[in-house]
Amino acid sequence: MPLVDLNSSLGESFGIWQRGMDDAMLRIVSSASIACGLHAGDPLVMQTTAGSARRAGVTVGAELGYPDLQGYGQRDFNMTPYEIYVYSLYQIGGLAAICRANNVKLEYVKLHGALYMRAAAELAAAKSIACAIRDTDKTVILLGQSGTCFEVAASDVGIPFAGEIFAHRGYREDGSLIPKGERGDVVSDLQAATQSVVRLLKEGVLVSSNGTALPMKASSIGIHGDYKGAAKLAFAVKEALEANGFTIAGLRKVVESSSESSSAPSSPALGAL
Amino acid sequence: MPLVDLNSSLGESFGIWQRGMDDAMLRIVSSASIACGLHAGDPLVMQTTAGSARRAGVTVGAELGYPDLQGYGQRDFNMTPYEIYVYSLYQIGGLAAICRANNVKLEYVKLHGALYMRAAAELAAAKSIACAIRDTDKTVILLGQSGTCFEVAASDVGIPFAGEIFAHRGYREDGSLIPKGERGDVVSDLQAATQSVVRLLKEGVLVSSNGTALPMKASSIGIHGDYKGAAKLAFAVKEALEANGFTIAGLRKVVESSSESSSAPSSPALGAL
Amino acid sequence: MPLVDLNSSLGESFGIWQRGMDDAMLRIVSSASIACGLHAGDPLVMQTTAGSARRAGVTVGAELGYPDLQGYGQRDFNMTPYEIYVYSLYQIGGLAAICRANNVKLEYVKLHGALYMRAAAELAAAKSIACAIRDTDKTVILLGQSGTCFEVAASDVGIPFAGEIFAHRGYREDGSLIPKGERGDVVSDLQAATQSVVRLLKEGVLVSSNGTALPMKASSIGIHGDYKGAAKLAFAVKEALEANGFTIAGLRKVVESSSESSSAPSSPALGAL
Amino acid sequence: MPLVDLNSSLGESFGIWQRGMDDAMLRIVSSASIACGLHAGDPLVMQTTAGSARRAGVTVGAELGYPDLQGYGQRDFNMTPYEIYVYSLYQIGGLAAICRANNVKLEYVKLHGALYMRAAAELAAAKSIACAIRDTDKTVILLGQSGTCFEVAASDVGIPFAGEIFAHRGYREDGSLIPKGERGDVVSDLQAATQSVVRLLKEGVLVSSNGTALPMKASSIGIHGDYKGAAKLAFAVKEALEANGFTIAGLRKVVESSSESSSAPSSPALGAL
Repeated sequence: MPLVDLNSSLGESFGIWQRGMDDAMLRIVSSASIACGLHAGDPLVMQTTAGSARRAGVTVGAELGYPDLQGYGQRDFNMTPYEIYVYSLYQIGGLAAICRANNVKLEYVKLHGALYMRAAAELAAAKSIACAIRDTDKTVILLGQSGTCFEVAASDVGIPFAGEIFAHRGYREDGSLIPKGERGDVVSDLQAATQSVVRLLKEGVLVSSNGTALPMKASSIGIHGDYKGAAKLAFAVKEALEANGFTIAGLRKVVESSSESSSAPSSPALGAL
Repeated sequence: MPLVDLNSSLGESFGIWQRGMDDAMLRIVSSASIACGLHAGDPLVMQTTAGSARRAGVTVGAELGYPDLQGYGQRDFNMTPYEIYVYSLYQIGGLAAICRANNVKLEYVKLHGALYMRAAAELAAAKSIACAIRDTDKTVILLGQSGTCFEVAASDVGIPFAGEIFAHRGYREDGSLIPKGERGDVVSDLQAATQSVVRLLKEGVLVSSNGTALPMKASSIGIHGDYKGAAKLAFAVKEALEANGFTIAGLRKVVESSSESSSAPSSPALGAL
Repeated sequence: MPLVDLNSSLGESFGIWQRGMDDAMLRIVSSASIACGLHAGDPLVMQTTAGSARRAGVTVGAELGYPDLQGYGQRDFNMTPYEIYVYSLYQIGGLAAICRANNVKLEYVKLHGALYMRAAAELAAAKSIACAIRDTDKTVILLGQSGTCFEVAASDVGIPFAGEIFAHRGYREDGSLIPKGERGDVVSDLQAATQSVVRLLKEGVLVSSNGTALPMKASSIGIHGDYKGAAKLAFAVKEALEANGFTIAGLRKVVESSSESSSAPSSPALGAL
Repeated sequence: MPLVDLNSSLGESFGIWQRGMDDAMLRIVSSASIACGLHAGDPLVMQTTAGSARRAGVTVGAELGYPDLQGYGQRDFNMTPYEIYVYSLYQIGGLAAICRANNVKLEYVKLHGALYMRAAAELAAAKSIACAIRDTDKTVILLGQSGTCFEVAASDVGIPFAGEIFAHRGYREDGSLIPKGERGDVVSDLQAATQSVVRLLKEGVLVSSNGTALPMKASSIGIHGDYKGAAKLAFAVKEALEANGFTIAGLRKVVESSSESSSAPSSPALGAL
């Protein structure tokens, strides 16, 4: 029975400012991508979220972003690859220590906002993050879109990689994410979003916003926690996946199961999950 | 031959703003107390300083402070003990990851400025820090003044403790540090500072600014890196200690050597070092 | 017909983080106390709020706090009176420029959180703020509780003062505000809150949480915008005041009307409003 | 006798971190471009610098930058023109209030680092700043390089403009500034820098780093306060200008003198100064 992970960006509150419906999401998803205090979150929020994630039994990852709290990490910021590398070490380390204090292991790293968009397309940026993973804990998984610089960087640097596709976002026909604020950025039709996720996982095909079918692999389906209706979408995706024979599991388990099946002689398309 | 550590607060630059004479200090001291970005330092400075410390062969520790960059952590800030605990996890984690990437281990934690003054006197604050150490790596040493809440907290929580006295600061007759800005806060006479350090280590006695002799133990002599003439003072202290038969060694080595000797049946006064 | 002002803390969002129900409040209150970016708000939020306030026709004031965004200005922070003075200049200036660009005048200054509590009780802190007002625009009103250091400071420094009482907060029998988090800090009974406001304005009496009646004057009733049910409370207070013959007016108008009536030979208790 | 202004970026310290030789510069220059706390400086530093500038009798301007303290405003940051507008209001307002409290008027605005580079080339960004000036005080001068978007924006928006050339920086043959870190960015030869300033002012010609002579006007010569040897350079430039018949005067005076002479029937090339 094929496994797939559902992950959501959580811990995006800051100080007294609440954001997201973390409690609801933690009952649905299998992995929590926790903000590390630079684009969202703060140490207290990280601590609360890591504890909630452990109690919910979900896998924990770090979501890294630019140091731009006021802009929520959505504005491009001309940090050098070396600066990205060092800021990644810092963010991973801060969350990893908080995870350790909560008896939960940091299992993966993913990116946020403008840094996601940049590293998907710029190998030097993606490698900075992959190196930060390798230099702190080389068993940590880099989660990002398959076929982008994320996958190349992970392979070059020698760390595990897992593919992710967002359930509620539109993609261009070259497979790249439509930036926030541009036409087609968000898929608001619940059924459309759900069906495209099922098709992706069953057929290994991502349909772009203009209808082009692209070969694509994904171990994890990403759902932003701050998306209005996020819990509803997450629940619908989960139900559809289970109805189609998938089992929802934390990212580490999905990746390990995938390594086993991919070592089998003739793996079917879904084996890569 | 008794061992003693010389440590200095380093990595206190921020962005383009240089502070301290880190390169000079790293040639003299045996331990580097690196700021973690909240009261001084930033990820890039932490990275540079951790690398320099490794190349210099000195032991690395984290210097934790209040999140008050503009005030250099010198202003009292009413964080709760729980907030101090979480912010300690965050600071320790950030620096520990950067240390790991530089192939150097984070061996100890000490405090800075207003947080030092508070935790020396308030057990709940000191315990917050001791718990943060225990919950991330319980082999890490808490460095602070003997006989204060630091020592009690370390003992209560079950982590290693090492005593520190500052070479260039004045102490009250109750053994507490004279706060910055108050009369007698800094000992500017090089010879006086040096002699009091030698006496402390040889006789186990700290002389307060009004001449009272207090029993005191110390494994490490602290010299602020930003103190004008810090390198000169550090060099003078080092020379005086060596002339008096001491060997300068990193804090970990001093503490380990001390545990060995303290397990001996009848340890002389200096055995406690 | 006596005038009274209703003011609310607005513009407390930060970046993407929404807080308060500013649009609803602006339809009810007569004055907007806008956060200046140090404890809440940011330049973009200040700009939006100043524009909304102008369109709603309400009077605009600056709400000053400690530079502690993560703690929402609720934690005591040991800034010196001189530092408070300079940070007040900075906050007043930033908002005043944004007001000017929105064709609205900054008419008053009030304090937030831990800085409010401190300046109410510490004359040096209150004077720092009064001096910042005098040195930027001495026609600006200092809004704070009558009989506290706010009133003394305004008088000493020679700037206008107006008294404020919070509709939804409890007071001790010495007239001081019960700090947030302590028993009795918030008056959650809508009718009780409304009645005490009416009594205060009609009889010049504030009833403390233990039932003591204290003489008290107020030109403005404060309602936190972030208080759950703030709009409901503001609406109820407004209705009750109007039913009791009061007219709701912006703070500047209330203060001017008060000066006229107070120059009358024998002013009744309510004349001070 | 033609007038020319010498301005320097001052008030670039932050907290305990000193930067620049402000006292030395204030004895030489005629205008102080004071950082406003987002890329450098903080309220306390702004206060100190405004007071020093008043006592030195120099003209005061605001130097605006991106909110990037750790990167000193040197990294490109994708704020929208609207965000730049609002952040300019905020910075101008904060410094203007501090100036008022120091009995000195804010007379001009210039840009810093990456924001300077962007606004020189992008009209929408330059206009954002010009509009912020117009909407706070339309008599304030926008200081920037002649012939760039700064001049167009000031003209479009209807605020005064003054041209500036840096004494110690290299220019490309299209007249644009060579970015920091690129070959030829800094002119380190004191005599070369001095001579090119004299030639610029006498002949209205800027010589690019590859030797091309470009027509150029300037009312002010900029010298970074943080440039190693800044005071030496400023002094040499001042001496050379005085030896060549120029009088050093604050920017407001230079601009007013220029308006008078430019209304004369046949103004020579230098009349534009």
